[in-house]
This record gives sequence, C-alpha cells and structure tokens, in this order.
Amino acid sequence: MNAPAPRAQVVFLNGPNLALLGKRQPEIYGRTSLADVERELRARCAQLDVDLLAFQSDVEGELVRFLGDVFLAHDAKQVRTLGIIFNPGAYTHTSIALRDACDNLASLGVRVVETHLSNVFAREEFRHHSYLSPVALGVLCGFGTKGYVLALEALLSHNDLA
Amino acid sequence: MNAPAPRAQVVFLNGPNLALLGKRQPEIYGRTSLADVERELRARCAQLDVDLLAFQSDVEGELVRFLGDVFLAHDAKQVRTLGIIFNPGAYTHTSIALRDACDNLASLGVRVVETHLSNVFAREEFRHHSYLSPVALGVLCGFGTKGYVLALEALLSHNDLA
Amino acid sequence: MNAPAPRAQVVFLNGPNLALLGKRQPEIYGRTSLADVERELRARCAQLDVDLLAFQSDVEGELVRFLGDVFLAHDAKQVRTLGIIFNPGAYTHTSIALRDACDNLASLGVRVVETHLSNVFAREEFRHHSYLSPVALGVLCGFGTKGYVLALEALLSHNDLA
Amino acid sequence: MNAPAPRAQVVFLNGPNLALLGKRQPEIYGRTSLADVERELRARCAQLDVDLLAFQSDVEGELVRFLGDVFLAHDAKQVRTLGIIFNPGAYTHTSIALRDACDNLASLGVRVVETHLSNVFAREEFRHHSYLSPVALGVLCGFGTKGYVLALEALLSHNDLA
Amino acid sequence: MNAPAPRAQVVFLNGPNLALLGKRQPEIYGRTSLADVERELRARCAQLDVDLLAFQSDVEGELVRFLGDVFLAHDAKQVRTLGIIFNPGAYTHTSIALRDACDNLASLGVRVVETHLSNVFAREEFRHHSYLSPVALGVLCGFGTKGYVLALEALLSHNDLA
Amino acid sequence: MNAPAPRAQVVFLNGPNLALLGKRQPEIYGRTSLADVERELRARCAQLDVDLLAFQSDVEGELVRFLGDVFLAHDAKQVRTLGIIFNPGAYTHTSIALRDACDNLASLGVRVVETHLSNVFAREEFRHHSYLSPVALGVLCGFGTKGYVLALEALLSHNDLA
Amino acid sequence: MNAPAPRAQVVFLNGPNLALLGKRQPEIYGRTSLADVERELRARCAQLDVDLLAFQSDVEGELVRFLGDVFLAHDAKQVRTLGIIFNPGAYTHTSIALRDACDNLASLGVRVVETHLSNVFAREEFRHHSYLSPVALGVLCGFGTKGYVLALEALLSHNDLA
Amino acid sequence: MNAPAPRAQVVFLNGPNLALLGKRQPEIYGRTSLADVERELRARCAQLDVDLLAFQSDVEGELVRFLGDVFLAHDAKQVRTLGIIFNPGAYTHTSIALRDACDNLASLGVRVVETHLSNVFAREEFRHHSYLSPVALGVLCGFGTKGYVLALEALLSHNDLA
Amino acid sequence: MNAPAPRAQVVFLNGPNLALLGKRQPEIYGRTSLADVERELRARCAQLDVDLLAFQSDVEGELVRFLGDVFLAHDAKQVRTLGIIFNPGAYTHTSIALRDACDNLASLGVRVVETHLSNVFAREEFRHHSYLSPVALGVLCGFGTKGYVLALEALLSHNDLA
Amino acid sequence: MNAPAPRAQVVFLNGPNLALLGKRQPEIYGRTSLADVERELRARCAQLDVDLLAFQSDVEGELVRFLGDVFLAHDAKQVRTLGIIFNPGAYTHTSIALRDACDNLASLGVRVVETHLSNVFAREEFRHHSYLSPVALGVLCGFGTKGYVLALEALLSHNDLA
Amino acid sequence: MNAPAPRAQVVFLNGPNLALLGKRQPEIYGRTSLADVERELRARCAQLDVDLLAFQSDVEGELVRFLGDVFLAHDAKQVRTLGIIFNPGAYTHTSIALRDACDNLASLGVRVVETHLSNVFAREEFRHHSYLSPVALGVLCGFGTKGYVLALEALLSHNDLA
Amino acid sequence: MNAPAPRAQVVFLNGPNLALLGKRQPEIYGRTSLADVERELRARCAQLDVDLLAFQSDVEGELVRFLGDVFLAHDAKQVRTLGIIFNPGAYTHTSIALRDACDNLASLGVRVVETHLSNVFAREEFRHHSYLSPVALGVLCGFGTKGYVLALEALLSHNDLA
Repeated sequence: MNAPAPRAQVVFLNGPNLALLGKRQPEIYGRTSLADVERELRARCAQLDVDLLAFQSDVEGELVRFLGDVFLAHDAKQVRTLGIIFNPGAYTHTSIALRDACDNLASLGVRVVETHLSNVFAREEFRHHSYLSPVALGVLCGFGTKGYVLALEALLSHNDLA
Repeated sequence: MNAPAPRAQVVFLNGPNLALLGKRQPEIYGRTSLADVERELRARCAQLDVDLLAFQSDVEGELVRFLGDVFLAHDAKQVRTLGIIFNPGAYTHTSIALRDACDNLASLGVRVVETHLSNVFAREEFRHHSYLSPVALGVLCGFGTKGYVLALEALLSHNDLA
Repeated sequence: MNAPAPRAQVVFLNGPNLALLGKRQPEIYGRTSLADVERELRARCAQLDVDLLAFQSDVEGELVRFLGDVFLAHDAKQVRTLGIIFNPGAYTHTSIALRDACDNLASLGVRVVETHLSNVFAREEFRHHSYLSPVALGVLCGFGTKGYVLALEALLSHNDLA
Repeated sequence: MNAPAPRAQVVFLNGPNLALLGKRQPEIYGRTSLADVERELRARCAQLDVDLLAFQSDVEGELVRFLGDVFLAHDAKQVRTLGIIFNPGAYTHTSIALRDACDNLASLGVRVVETHLSNVFAREEFRHHSYLSPVALGVLCGFGTKGYVLALEALLSHNDLA
Repeated sequence: MNAPAPRAQVVFLNGPNLALLGKRQPEIYGRTSLADVERELRARCAQLDVDLLAFQSDVEGELVRFLGDVFLAHDAKQVRTLGIIFNPGAYTHTSIALRDACDNLASLGVRVVETHLSNVFAREEFRHHSYLSPVALGVLCGFGTKGYVLALEALLSHNDLA
Repeated sequence: MNAPAPRAQVVFLNGPNLALLGKRQPEIYGRTSLADVERELRARCAQLDVDLLAFQSDVEGELVRFLGDVFLAHDAKQVRTLGIIFNPGAYTHTSIALRDACDNLASLGVRVVETHLSNVFAREEFRHHSYLSPVALGVLCGFGTKGYVLALEALLSHNDLA
Repeated sequence: MNAPAPRAQVVFLNGPNLALLGKRQPEIYGRTSLADVERELRARCAQLDVDLLAFQSDVEGELVRFLGDVFLAHDAKQVRTLGIIFNPGAYTHTSIALRDACDNLASLGVRVVETHLSNVFAREEFRHHSYLSPVALGVLCGFGTKGYVLALEALLSHNDLA
Repeated sequence: MNAPAPRAQVVFLNGPNLALLGKRQPEIYGRTSLADVERELRARCAQLDVDLLAFQSDVEGELVRFLGDVFLAHDAKQVRTLGIIFNPGAYTHTSIALRDACDNLASLGVRVVETHLSNVFAREEFRHHSYLSPVALGVLCGFGTKGYVLALEALLSHNDLA
Repeated sequence: MNAPAPRAQVVFLNGPNLALLGKRQPEIYGRTSLADVERELRARCAQLDVDLLAFQSDVEGELVRFLGDVFLAHDAKQVRTLGIIFNPGAYTHTSIALRDACDNLASLGVRVVETHLSNVFAREEFRHHSYLSPVALGVLCGFGTKGYVLALEALLSHNDLA
Repeated sequence: MNAPAPRAQVVFLNGPNLALLGKRQPEIYGRTSLADVERELRARCAQLDVDLLAFQSDVEGELVRFLGDVFLAHDAKQVRTLGIIFNPGAYTHTSIALRDACDNLASLGVRVVETHLSNVFAREEFRHHSYLSPVALGVLCGFGTKGYVLALEALLSHNDLA
Repeated sequence: MNAPAPRAQVVFLNGPNLALLGKRQPEIYGRTSLADVERELRARCAQLDVDLLAFQSDVEGELVRFLGDVFLAHDAKQVRTLGIIFNPGAYTHTSIALRDACDNLASLGVRVVETHLSNVFAREEFRHHSYLSPVALGVLCGFGTKGYVLALEALLSHNDLA
Repeated sequence: MNAPAPRAQVVFLNGPNLALLGKRQPEIYGRTSLADVERELRARCAQLDVDLLAFQSDVEGELVRFLGDVFLAHDAKQVRTLGIIFNPGAYTHTSIALRDACDNLASLGVRVVETHLSNVFAREEFRHHSYLSPVALGVLCGFGTKGYVLALEALLSHNDLA
C-alpha cells in the first residue's frame, strides 16, 4: 500500500520589524496586520486545499532555521511546498545566509517570490541591491500588504493552480 | 442636479515589440497573446463595473500622447482612472519622456504598476536600470503574462476595490 | 510676371507632455495653456504682418516630420519662415534626429530658438545636455511661458523686424 | 491540395529625415527622391518576380511596428521576405528597440543590409557606432542613393537570385 | 472619566557581548557590571519618578523585537518612553534592521542616544561607520560605563527633565 | 576544604545551514549528520573524562550568547573549557560579533579551532577571508566531517591531554 | 585639332594574401578566385566601354606605386580613372602610406571604394579601425566576392554611368 | 606468479629551519623535536602496517629531489604512497619548483596536506599567500607539532584507513 | 596509375637587411654570406633527398607573396614542404601580414622555425615581442648563421628525418 | 701601383608618394619635381667634383635594398659616400627595417640627413614619432624642396667640403 | 717545457624536476630520459675528442656551485669549457644567483645556451620572462629533447668545431 | 666544579658566487680571495682571544643549515658567538628562509652585520630590497673586501671589545 501523497503548502515568511505591521505609521501602511494578511492567504489556500505555513521573525538565523525545516520536511516528502512568499525586510541587502538557505530550497525546486511592501527602487541607494533577487522566481514591490496576496497568486500560477 | 460620477477605468499599456507576444519564440514565451491577456483583464474589470482601456504602441511618443489623453480625461473628470498597468519594453531603459508622462499622472494620484514578463534582475546589466521605477506605484517582474493579472489586482486593491 | 513674394511665418513648436500645459500642476506652472501662448504670439506677429504656424506632438518622429514639411515649404518658396520657437521637452536630451532636422533648416538659413519653461540647468544632471543647442541660434530657459514671448522677440530681432 | 508558395518580397525601409531626399542640399545629395529610388528597386525586383515593400517613417516606433508586421507576415508564410534594405538614419546610434526588432527577424532568417547615404566613418565620432551592425548581414555606406540599389543586389545575391 | 496618564520610562538597551561587562578584562573595563549600571540609572530615574526598562541581548533580531515591543507599548499609551540609551555593540556597524527599528520609534518621537564604552573612532577603520548614528538623537563614546549616566542625563535634558 | 576541581569540557559549535548536514546534497557532502559527528566526539572525550557541549544555531546572536555563557561558566570556574571546535559557516565572512566573542574567550585562554568542511582556499574569492582566523588557535579545512575529529585532537593536544 | 578623349578605366586593387582567394579555406570563402572576379568585373565594364585595370600585390609599396602611376596617368589625361575598388587586406589597419596615396587621388577626384569580404564589424576589435575609411568614397563589407561587383556598380554610379 | 603488493607509506616532509624544532624558543614552540614527532607518527603508522618516510632539508632543491624520488618509487610501484605531510616553511610563499613537484605527484593521485606549526593567518601579510594550497588536499595550521599528527590522521582518513 | 609522390622541400626564408650578411660588421657577424649558408643547408638536405627552396627579400610583401606560393604548391601537392626556416628580421615585430601568411601555412601543417642571428632578448625592449612566435613551432636565437643549420635539424627532426 | 681613390658621391633618397612631387597639389607644393631637385643638387655636387646618386621608391623594402647596395659599394671602396639625403615619407613613422639599414651605414661612417617637406611636428600626432631620427646625423623639416638643398649643404659641411 | 693543452669539455646542465624526464607524462614528453640525451651528446663530443660534463640538480645552489667549479677549473686552465647547455627549469623565472653565475662564466668567454623543451612563448605569461636570457649566448625552445642536441651543435659551432 | 666559560667566536659567512672572490674579474674586484680576508679577520680576532668560524656556500639551504648549527652550539653554550659577518650575495633579495634563520639567532642575542662588496643601492632596482636588513644589526656596502674588516670592528664594538 502506497503512502498517501503529502499535503501541499505555501510558506508565508516575514523578516525584521514586520511584526509591527498595522501599527507602524498606519496612515501610510494601513491597519492591516500580519495576522490579517495570514488569515486572507489561508482562506485563499483553503479553496485549493493547500495549507499555509506562516512565520515571522526579527532574527536572521531564525529565518534560516525555519527555511532549513521547510527543506527537511519537503525533502522527506512530509509536505509538498509550492513556494515561499518571502519579505526579508532589511536582511534583503546583507544576508548571505538567507540566500544560501533559499538556494538550498531552489535545488529541490521550491522557489521564492521576493516581496516588499514599499517600492524599494524609490528609496535609498543601498536598498536597490538584493542578495535574494538573482535566486528568486520573481520580485514584487510597492503594493503594501496586497503584495502578499499577489505573491500567493503568482506562486499558485507557477504551480498551475490558478 | 449633479453630473453623474464618471466611469472608472483601468489602463492596460504595452510598449515596443510586445504586439508579437504569443508569436515570438512561443516555446519560451508561450502562446498567450496580448488580446488574450486583455480579454482576461476586461472580464475581471467587468465584475467590478470598471472599464478597461487597452493600448499598445511601438511608438514612444504615442505612448506619451496616450498617457497625456488619460491625464486630460481624468483631470476633466470624464473618466476616473484607477491606475495603469504598464510594460514599457525596451523604452524602460531609455525614455525620459515616458517617465515625465507618468510623473504627471502621479500628480493626479493616477499610479503606474511597472510590469515585466521576465525577471529583469536575472538578465543583462543594462536591463537592471529603469527610468520608470522611481515614479511607479510598484514593480512586478518574472511572472510571465500572469504578471499583468497580478498588476490589475494590485491596482484594484490600491483603489480599495479588491 | 513674377510670383508674389511668399508670406512670412514664425513656427511655434512644442514636444512631449507640453499639450498638458495649463492643466499640469497649475499651482506651479500657472493656468496658461499652449493655446493661450499661441494667441499671444499670433497677435504679436500680426502686428508685423507675419503668420504663426503652431504644432505640438508627443512623438519625436512627428516633430521631425513637421520640421521636414517646414523645410519643403520654405525651400519651395511657398512661405518664408523667419525662425522656429522650439521646446523639445524631454527629447532635448536624447534626440539626434531632431538635431539633424534643425540642421537641415539651418542650411536654408532658418534658425531655431531652443526654449524651456524651467531652468533645466538647475535640475537633474541628465537634463544638462542638449543635442539641439549646438545647432540653435540661441537657448532660453527658466522664464515659464513668458520665455516663448522672449523667443519670438529674439527671432524677430534676428530678422531685423524688431 | 497544397497552398501556393508565398510571394517573395524585399523590404525597403528608411528612417528619420529621409523623406527630404532629393530636396535637401541637392547639390550634394542629388535630386533623386525616395520615390525615385523605390521605382528603380521595384523595377529590378519585378525582373525576378519579387515584390518590393517600401516604408519610410520619421518615427522610431513606426519602424519597429513595421518590422513587427514583416515578422508576422513572414512567420505566417503569407509572404517570403528575402531581406531588408534598412537606412535607420539617426536611430542607428540610439535605438535598442530597432535592434531588438531586427534580432527578431534574424531569428526567422530574415537579414538586414545596413545602408547609409554618407560615409559615416568620415563624420563625427558619435556616428561611428551602430547598434545595428553586429546583427546585420553587412554594411554599406557613402554611395548616396545608389547604395540602396547595391544593397538590393547584395540581398538578391545572398538569396542566390543574382 | 479619563484614563490616568501613562508612567514615564527610560529604556536601557545593550547589544552583543555586553552581558560580560565587569567580567571581561576587568583590569581594563573595570568591575562594574551592567546590573551595577542599571542600578545607578534606576536610582537617578526614581528621583524624577521615571521607570527604567533594561534589556540586553546578543541577538540582533531580539533587539529589533524588543524595540518593536517598546514601540507598541508607547503607541498604545501604556507607557511613555522618554528615550533609549542604546549600546548596539558590534551590530552598530552592520545592522540596517536596528536602524529601521529606531527609525520607527523616532516617528513616535522616541529618540535614541547611541552609546559606546570605548572611543570607536580611535579603533579599527571598520568600527568608524554606524548605521544608527543618522537616526539617533546623539552619539557618545569613550567614557566607559560613565557614558551610560551621561546618556541618561542627555535624554532627561531632551525631555526638559534635567 | 577546597572546592572540587571543575569538570573539563570541549565545546562543539556549528553555525547557519549546518543542521542540514547529511541531508543537503548527500552525494557530495556524505550522509554523516552533525549528530553522528557529535556522538564520535563525545565518545573520544569520554575516554579522557571530558564532557562535550554541543550547540548548533542558525542565529548569529545565539552563537554569541552561547559563547558568552561559556565565558561566564569558565570564568566562574564552574567548568573548565578546553577549547572550542567552531564551524561558523556563512558568518565566517561577515560576523564581527562572533570574532569579538571568541576574542573574549581567548583572553581567558580558551581557544577556538576554526573548522571548515571544504578547502575554502580552493573556492570563491569571497570565502578566502575570515574575521575569525586571526583570533583562532588554528585553522583546518578540506577534510570533511573528519576535520571535526582532528580539531578535537588539536584541542586535546593543546591542553596536553592527547 | 583636339586630342581624343582618354579611355575610361576602373581600377581593381587587392592587397596581401588575397592571391590565395578560392584556395584558402574554400569551404568558408568559396571557390571563386580573384581571376573569376576580375573576369566578371571586366565584362561589366566592357558593356560601358570602360577598361578594367586589375592589380594584386602582397607588397604595400607596390600598391602605393601602382596608385601613384594611376595618379600620373589620370593627371596627364592619358586615361580617365572612374575610381578604385580596393581591398587592402591586413594593410587596412596599419598603412599610412596607402592612405596618403588614396588621399592624393582624391585630390584629383578619383575615389576609392573600400571593400572587405567579411563583416569586419562583427570580428576582432583591432579590425574595426581603418586608416583608409576617412578618405574613401564609401565602405562596403560582409558580402563576400559579390561585394567587388557592388563596389564596381557604386563607382559606375558615382560617375553617372549606371 | 604475481608480484607482491607494494608496501604502503606516508611521507613526512619538512623544510627550512625546522631542524631546530624543540630548541628554538622552546617556551613558545615546546621541546618536541622533529625526531620526537617522527617517532610518534611512525608508531601510529605501524598500527596500520604502514611505513613512514621522513625527510627534512633546509634546501629547496633537496625537497624537490626528494619529492621526485617519491614520484619515481610510486610510479614504479615499489611503494604505495598514501600521501604527504608537508611543512614547506618559508618556501611556502616563494617556491614554484615545489608546487610543480607536488603537482607531479597529484597527477599520480598522491596528495599533500599542507601543515604549518603557527597560525600563519595571524602573522605578516606576506605569509598569507601559499603557492601550495590550491594543489593541496587540505590545509592545517596553528597546532604546533600536534598538527603533524592530525595531518597524518587526515591522510589516513582520506585513504579510508582511519 | 598513381601520380608519383611530390618531392620534399625545406624553405629557407630571410627578411630585410639580411642580404648584407657576411659583409656587415664581419668582425662580429663573421664572413659567412647567405649564399654560404644556403649551400650548407642544401648539402644537408641533399643527403636526405630533400630540396631546399631559398629566398631573401627586403620587401615585406614579397615575403608574403613567396609564402603564398609555398602555400599553393603544397596545397596542390606539387611539392611537400617539411617546414620553413624563417628569419623575418625587423618585420618580426610589426608585420601582421606575415603572421597571417604563416597562419595559412600552419593550417596545412607546414610549420615555421623562427630564427634570429642575434640574441634579441639581450637587445632593445621593442625587439622582445614577436608577432610570429605564438604561431611558430619553436624559436631559436643568438647563434649567428649556425642557427640556420640548427633550425634545419629541428625541422628534419620534427619530420622524423633526423 | 695603387688603385685610384674612389669617386665621392652623395645619395638622394626618397620614399613613398614622392614620385608625384610637382604634380600633386602644385598650388600647395609647387611645380618643382624630384627631377628638378635632383638637377639642382647634382649641379651643386659637380662644383665639388662629387657625384649624386638619386633613387626613389614607394616600396619600403626597395629602399632597404638600395641602402644595402650603397653599403656594399662603399664597403668595397668602389665609391665614397659622403652621406644620404633621405625623405622616408610615411615610412618614417613605422619602419624599423629602414632604421636598421641606416644603422648599418652609420657603422661605416655614412650618415643620413632626415628630410621632410612639411613641418611634421605641426601635423597629426602620429607623424611626430620617427624611428629614423635617433640614428640620423640630423633632421630638417618644413622648408619644402629647398630643404633638400639645405640637407646637401649640411652633408658637405659634415665632410668639411663646404 | 710547456704544460699540455687542457682537455676541452662541454657542460650539460639541468635544473629542478628534470630528473623525471621520460617518466613524467611520457605520452606528452616522450620516453627519452636525461641519460639517453646525455649518451647522445657524449657520443657526438667524442667524435671531436671533447668531454661531456653532465650534471642535474634540483638544488639552485648546487647549480651555482657547479657553475663556480666550472669557472675555477676553466680559469685555472685545467680544462677548457666550450660552453654550457643549460635548462634551468622553474629557476629560469626566479634565480638571480644563477644569472650571476652565468655572468661570471661569460666574463671568461664561457657561454650558456638556454634550452627549454617546450615553446615557452606559447605558454603562461609568467613563463615569458627569463633572468638568464640577457646573459646567454642564445636561446632555443620548442624542440623537445632534440633541442639539447641542437644546443650542443650551437656550442660546437661557436667554438668553430662544427 | 663549574664548567669553563665557552670560547668566544665571530662567524664569517658568505653566500653564492663568493667562492670565486679574487678570481672573478680581478682587475675590478682585486686579487684578494676569501681565504685572504679570512686570514686577516682571524688575526684581528686572535688579538682579542676570539675564534673565527668561516663558511661559504652557494646553496641557500646550506647557509640556513649552518646558521642553525651556530644557533644550536650557542644555545648549548658550547661556544659564545659574538655576531655574524654575513654577505648573502644574490639571496639577499629573495630568501625569507635566511631572514628566519637570522631571526632565530637574534632571539639569542646573536646579531648579523649584513655586508656587500659593491654598493647595491647604486645597481639595478631589484638589488635595492633586502629581506635581511630588517633583522640585521646593521648594513654595510660598497667598500670591497675592506668592508668585511669594518664589519668585524662593528661587531667587536657591539660587544664592547673594541
């Protein structure tokens, strides 16, 4: 008797300072919290019988560890990860460890959609370079929290699910 | 008696060489044409009683003029433009006139979503710079024709319609 | 029997995004439209029994074509062009084709007064270079729409009419 | 029953300021107009039962669009394009869009003969670089309007027709 | 009935390797521990009926998270933060995430006094650059643990309390 | 009556992405996990009545904190740390905080053996520089997981235990 | 009694290593020899009652001398040279003497058509510079031996003979 | 009758100034002489029925010659060399001849473990470059004479003997 | 009936100023003339039933032409050229045409031994570079006229004739 | 009986393109031909019972050969060469072979006066360097054909004849 | 009574790694050993009653010492050294001491023929420079072991023995 | 009973090519041999009841080894070395190993006087750098063999013996 096919999941990952979402300068960034976004993404995933695995950390290494766990679960066929919606925040510009972690996942065919709330190209010079972009499936910025929903659709489309 | 509120519209704008979409190297870019994309975008807009104004031109100045007409109509309240899905193709890297035209619209609150089919950050160096990005609402690349659909959702969301 | 001497004219030519004049950020640029300027210039010309030929286009190539038509009419002695008041907008910095068109006219003795509304030398670096300036009669910038009037006086003076 | 073989054609394409040919400085460039040249090329083509498709535009994007139409017709086997005689004028030195359009055609085996009326190597430094030359079949300059005839012969010879 | 005014507090924040203070090379850095400093700062605050909230972490992200919590409490008016005495240790030179966290607080008017035990400008080149300084109220270095006391006075003064 | 001599221990410390050892590209790196290595090192230590304290973290600051705890325990003579086998992974090239933490320990005579699985001198240029090497006891690279065993022997020998 | 008008001639001139044409790597350059080309050119000239004077030399100075003889004969009106088809081979990039010789002829109105078999602009950097081009009537490259025929037509046309 | 399999050996090779080991600054380098080390290595080898071939020379060329003899004996299958523990001393930084000699051996599959007593990365800049490292199996430094023992274990492990 | 095998020959080729050999500074260069050398080489060749084809010219292009003739004769199997003893004199440092001619021959397997009378490496800097060396079989300098004899032996040996 | 003393001669040598003297742009260079100059020089020589040996060639190698013949005749005491008036034309800037030939003559005491019609130092950059000058007796330029006469006087003076 | 004339000898000298000749990569360098070469050279010398003194050392200083001994013996007229065939291997590029030793011998008239097996000018950049060449009689490379035989002939010839 | 105090000695050490002193170019360097110098130094030492230990080698490593032996004897108190007169010849510029050997001796208080016969600073650039100088007591050059005597006096003075 064969083992049942593993459940499919989408990963929703956020980096430093993003726990304040909805509280920080709401007149600019709105009052939507990460929890709100997560609920919306989870509902959309549920329509397709896909799980959502959400995680936020201000700690670079916790993000690395989380990505390592995703690697192990996918590699062990406990779960099938369709892709990762990843807003690395300030670590976008400095973390080689996160790039390496995403590279590991890409070797399994699990791709990242790099997502930023603000239009980073309209900000300081040092925010124009990303260690992640060259290993990402695509990049998306400037759409606030709606960007996460779009990133989910991009991943679903990349998996021919939407 | 007040004038009736103007109709809402979304603009779908494409630059040089994009009329060949679906024909040029279909094994790579797929067989989806601009008309196919337009049909899908229009259907989505219709759900929200929003018009879609689509235009493609290989001519930089026609794109400028078109954006100027959008400016005037919006400014005259003949129509309410929710935003512009814009793939400027090769003019992305060279056109100051298009940047200025988008800047004009931004002064009316009409924003552009810069959209590219491929992940330009994973291509030649000279395609990493965009005159448009700093004046755009956001940027989106690497998702093929699906990116246009995502850009529409980004605009609708920016207008609190989705 | 001799043909009658052709009428004299001044050309008033504007480039991309200038159709919006009077509408675009009126609190900054004022509410004077191109039509208003044209009316003023035409009145001044009428005093000297000179026609005014006005044209605006967002398309680089249409400006080239228009200058070609001016060339042909002048060359055919259907009209005598005293000069050209030309605001090439953003094409100032990138168009060799417009330079060539003006060069052609200069070979007939028809000269261009390059006119900009804003002081381009006080703006971004990339607006400091003009392909047109070396073949123009003179350059004039920073005086708003009044600059067009000054340009006309400059041309008239160059023709010993004022 | 098989479809009849498509007609063969040669494309004759000219860029900005070339509509003035025969009028501009005739003591230098002669009195031959583009129409005259077209007539001569058409006659030569007729001898070989080949059509001539002629187009001139001062507008970069109209040239791109025209080349796109040539692409589509050739790709649809409505016509068999033997090659393109192309004088891009001032756009030679600045247009990435035209290079891309010619690259598209080269992917179908349709080649361009880059043709200039004047000896560009005897002129200003900035006219020595061409975006087009590396993707052209060959280059030919300095022979005035006769150069178009030679370019036709080069294309016919490249197609083993002369 | 109004809610009572929230209590005022000063934050005392220390980064990596500073838990060892008083133990590490005491012949150089002295035997004063962070706890000793904290006691002294707390006493001074008590005189002004101000609380002291002290935190140390070796983890960049935990410092970010702590600053996020301070943000939330201040924003929710549970407490009124007069300012932050912050010695970010080695993260001074590399952390954009901490800069962003301090920037968030600055948007609420909560300012940071960047404090270093040693004179970092008299040490290795790579210790001369601080990501934090541009968003800090002020910088203070080279006074050993006494620097923390001075930083407190600077904050109090900034709040017109001393 | 004297306090009993503290137990001796060796620290086995690993940085980011190393939890995947044995899973990531096993055809290259082999199937030996960190747990396997730990078991082997522990057995060797047991022969000499020495404890092994193993820790892996993807978090830079947790590694710093862990090293701080080792510092305090050693300084308080609760335990006698013979040395540290440390593979800092990607943080080798970027972490000043880890260097400082190791420097602190070196001031107590507790030394680090920097260990890399691959011969980093035969890889990319940016992997040739280590912030750690100048404060390490020694460096060892290119021997795979066997390198950890050799590093242990190096430490034991440095303590005259083997 | 007037002297009869001198005969008209076209000069066909080839430089070093070109005597091997048709023998050297025939699978690339074809099997057409210089003699074959000469025969074709001579036949075409005969139609117009024009002589063909062909010369090939591997010797830079013989090419110079030959051009000097052409100068003298033309200057003495013994012959009327319509122009020179010249492929200078490797001397293109190094010979100032040949440039001077061609400059002398240009002062008599006798012009050179610089001809290369291959598209030199698609080859090594050092083949992009020609000492000859600035003093030539025109340049022609990339059409193989057919290029010689085209060069003849260019010269005939320049003399209003075709 | 087959020839018996050749004996296995490990080579222990030392360069200039290393004969003073145990005498030179013993308070730093200890009192262990090369002979002591050799005895220890030989005993370890004996456990595995492996010979130890030890050599020291202050003369660069004698080291080259010795490596040449090892090459010949291995190539002639008189002995099977498992690898070479090599401390080239000051010649590490200057000898191309020794690198070539090691390269020769590597072509037979005989690999070198580069071993240094001191941590060369904590010394002068000019001791950071090694001609040998890129052709070595691995590098090991900073462990004093114990490093030789570790290098032996690394070689045995590389040969699956330990 | 098969054609008889072509005769074998060695080519002896000398460049500018070498006709003076034996006369120029005989106290230095000796009294051996090129004719003397040729006689000696011819005698040696005769022993092996090989012809000697000798040529000297002060003219770069005559040397090119001669090498072209050698190419044609060898290609036509009229003669089998074993190799070329070539002293290009001053043209060594400047002639691309001679290098191309030798490259042509190398494509047929006919190799050049570059020979100089004097030790060029002991002379002026500008005599240290040779366009020929990279395409030669070998280089030989400093042995006066004896060098020619040695070059012959090198060629014979390369052909397994000596 | 002694052989009679050889006749004395002066050599008059001209390089490429100089055969055209008097014909080429006579309005600039005058109508004096080389023959005219030669006649004048010969007359002057005759006064001193000195022969004049004149030669012109466009071929670098023929000039080398001629100088070689002068060398041989002088060396054989068939003639006594007082010196050489040499205008190497364009070869001045590129010929090492001519320098060597003049060097040979200098070893016999026969010196060259380098002569140019125009002031080469007032022309293009690339005409400022002469390979010949360092081995010449002197250099003289800018005096037209009169320069040849001055050069003769210089040589006579050098021989104490004038 | 006079002392008998000393015996004549030729020195055959080889540097590092050359003892492996015939063993190292025989498929490339052939199976000829140094002993084979020595036998051939000795036989040739014997014909002329000349001794051959052969020496190979991997030791730079032994080569220096050997050359010093040759100096002394020659200087003392115990032997007459006709010259030295020297392949310095890797020391070619680094040894000043060997250059000095050869310079000493040159002051006695004993000259070196620098010999390389491969064409060093067709290899890595750092093998193009030789400290020895400027003080050698001549250089010879690219002819394999045959080059040694040619070098002997060069020396014999230099001594008027062949 | 105490061991008798060890004898005092001065070391006289010479490097490559110095065995030839007195023989090499005696007209320049004189006829004084190393033995002559040694005799003079020994006599001077005898006056002070000091021994002289003289050694010369052409081998870098033998000099290293000799210095190692001096180290061991001094360290074992078998002899008391007052210092070393050292002329390292060509190794001055390249040997790190000799520097290290002298450094070892310096750690025992045995110092080197670096001595050169010629003024190395007046010779080639590459003779201006010495690896030895930084660890020497002093440097002395340009006084011929007299320099050795001066070096001895310098050493005696350093030992308060003269």
